[in-house]
Amino acid sequence: MQYRFSKSILKTPKSFVREILKFTQMPEIISFAGGLPNKVYFPVDAVREATDKVLRKHGQEVLQYTTTEGYEPLREFITERYKGRGIEITKDEILIVSGSQQALDLSGKAFLDAGDPVIIEKPGYLGAIQAFSIFSPHFHEVSLNPDGIDTAELEETIKKHNPKFFYATPNFQNPSGLTYSLGNRKAAAKVLNDTETVIIEDDPYSEIRFLGEHLPPVKKFAHDNGILLGSFSKIVAPGLRIGWACASKQVMEKLVIAKQAADLHTNHFAQRVLYQYLQDNNIDEHIAKIRAGYLAQRTAMVNAMAEYFPKTTSYTQPEGGMFLWVTLPEGFSAMELLDIAIKRKVVFVPGEPFYADSRRSNSMRLNYTCSDEKTITEGIKRLADSIEEYAAGKR
Amino acid sequence: MQYRFSKSILKTPKSFVREILKFTQMPEIISFAGGLPNKVYFPVDAVREATDKVLRKHGQEVLQYTTTEGYEPLREFITERYKGRGIEITKDEILIVSGSQQALDLSGKAFLDAGDPVIIEKPGYLGAIQAFSIFSPHFHEVSLNPDGIDTAELEETIKKHNPKFFYATPNFQNPSGLTYSLGNRKAAAKVLNDTETVIIEDDPYSEIRFLGEHLPPVKKFAHDNGILLGSFSKIVAPGLRIGWACASKQVMEKLVIAKQAADLHTNHFAQRVLYQYLQDNNIDEHIAKIRAGYLAQRTAMVNAMAEYFPKTTSYTQPEGGMFLWVTLPEGFSAMELLDIAIKRKVVFVPGEPFYADSRRSNSMRLNYTCSDEKTITEGIKRLADSIEEYAAGKR
Repeated sequence: MQYRFSKSILKTPKSFVREILKFTQMPEIISFAGGLPNKVYFPVDAVREATDKVLRKHGQEVLQYTTTEGYEPLREFITERYKGRGIEITKDEILIVSGSQQALDLSGKAFLDAGDPVIIEKPGYLGAIQAFSIFSPHFHEVSLNPDGIDTAELEETIKKHNPKFFYATPNFQNPSGLTYSLGNRKAAAKVLNDTETVIIEDDPYSEIRFLGEHLPPVKKFAHDNGILLGSFSKIVAPGLRIGWACASKQVMEKLVIAKQAADLHTNHFAQRVLYQYLQDNNIDEHIAKIRAGYLAQRTAMVNAMAEYFPKTTSYTQPEGGMFLWVTLPEGFSAMELLDIAIKRKVVFVPGEPFYADSRRSNSMRLNYTCSDEKTITEGIKRLADSIEEYAAGKR
Repeated sequence: MQYRFSKSILKTPKSFVREILKFTQMPEIISFAGGLPNKVYFPVDAVREATDKVLRKHGQEVLQYTTTEGYEPLREFITERYKGRGIEITKDEILIVSGSQQALDLSGKAFLDAGDPVIIEKPGYLGAIQAFSIFSPHFHEVSLNPDGIDTAELEETIKKHNPKFFYATPNFQNPSGLTYSLGNRKAAAKVLNDTETVIIEDDPYSEIRFLGEHLPPVKKFAHDNGILLGSFSKIVAPGLRIGWACASKQVMEKLVIAKQAADLHTNHFAQRVLYQYLQDNNIDEHIAKIRAGYLAQRTAMVNAMAEYFPKTTSYTQPEGGMFLWVTLPEGFSAMELLDIAIKRKVVFVPGEPFYADSRRSNSMRLNYTCSDEKTITEGIKRLADSIEEYAAGKR
């Protein structure tokens, strides 16, 4: 059988993390390649109690089909939480989705025809590059600086290409760990507000800020130009696959059609279990534990890098989230380094898949949430040795 | 803000069932419009026990991210069940999806670029028309006869348009309740086997056969041309949102990329709960109860129609599934009838949304699984009165 697949699927990249799975699963390997939250913080017993309660009280109801928009009290919970942070929205502006990844797919459906221009950060989240690639857009990259998006480049790119949207992750970006400053958020919104370009603001990590002060989303300044995405994956558990999109009613109407076509509605059972869990537990106390744990892990990684990495290698020092970004000297290839690192039993994700054109990169993403502090230190030592070996080979 | 939505989302129809929600929720209304399984058959206590067990034994694991393909033992369970029916496949040919509706979206992603030709049954499942519309295909309709698809028309349409795929629901079709005969399945496969057209065979209802003998899927005869979709929604519970796609490894590779881009993976928690439920309970005994119940409901509806409907009105008599299809005399409009029926406190879905071009229709879909037998009889009386009133108005 000769299959005739779509042009778009043939151009959609596979996940690199998936490609190196066979290495990450080898014994004795230390993996900084994944992107998993630390499972020790999953509230297993509380979820068990919430499930028991929900099934005893509303069993037939929670196992039935439900509305495309999602469970109304859960949408209200999210709305109230935004209000607590000064974001005034209504529950009608919240759509529950199957993990915030799905909101990328739905945004693609709502906005993109083949060839449409979009802006993505350089580097950018590979899951977003994948999700949007399905709709065959034309990607335009805008540089990420230590204090956020390059607003001059953003403005120029918008003027030149009039993109449908700008995909941004202003808090503790995956992969770079960088955060937009308050000034940068306001400046980015100002650029957007005079245009027909929407910002899709992916925000799975904002609650996992372990240093510095919480900053408002760009949407607070961009208003109806802003589509804000959130997730319970990093603050409760990813296995429940529950995230949300927050957008104006006009956009919501299209996202709801796209959601219905995609999978009718988000898992009803999981929505109700999550809501019961949120009712019966103090989520802020729970998040405080995650923050403290991730800070310790991130600090162990940064300290080990300060001690063992050659001074020619730089790295970001994130104030939250799960990743940091290491930059090797010019001319180095993170992909080539990976071959050496695998032999030394440590893995990471090289920079290549975080660029829309998969260009050669001297940067790499390290995750610090899945290993304990001792393992992190050992892994960074191995990585330092790998860099040393690679540099020696180049000399 | 002037939004620039995609051309495709602007052309994607909304769900008609959703549009008439305000009527279906009115007090005293009898609704044959929905498509819900009967919640009295949801195994609430068994799901509660399965959840408790899974969270006690594998709590951290089941709340974590998982593989895109889905939980391997669940894929093996599905494989074994197919084997028991003479379909020889391996677990590598099974992808777990968020309800079989999602498999339609993933198939669209894997096969369709804008303008690509596809075949859909006439009438066809409105959820499929929605899901594929996102990819802006060109729909070609092929007639459905009492014994299945019109194979001469199918052959001619394939020759003329060389469609990417043929979307078919051979068992107890939604909306018509019609079933392809064994001979029709073989003939359809024969037509397909000499072509590059794939069949996407949507099969959520085959286990809910309450009359006649089980028939093998078209895929058994179409082999690698066949993509077969299944679901636990009708045999366990839709709130768990778990279905699957079964396809050759070449197709599976593309579906996996599409799935990853869409939502990374299907709800892990729900997959594990479902698997535990399937391990600890006899699913065949459970299905037998559903079949007996739906047969009684379907029979109540057919008997009431025989008694109360004018002889100029015909209807299908399904051997399984959840719907039957009523055809009014030529020149009648089911959409016009609906206005009268709403006043008489009974609702249904008119035929229009089940055609790719939403043409005027003298047919309508009735669901019989959500009302008890007494209510069904009363609803059919009201509908008969509505038809009478409508006919009188036309005379």
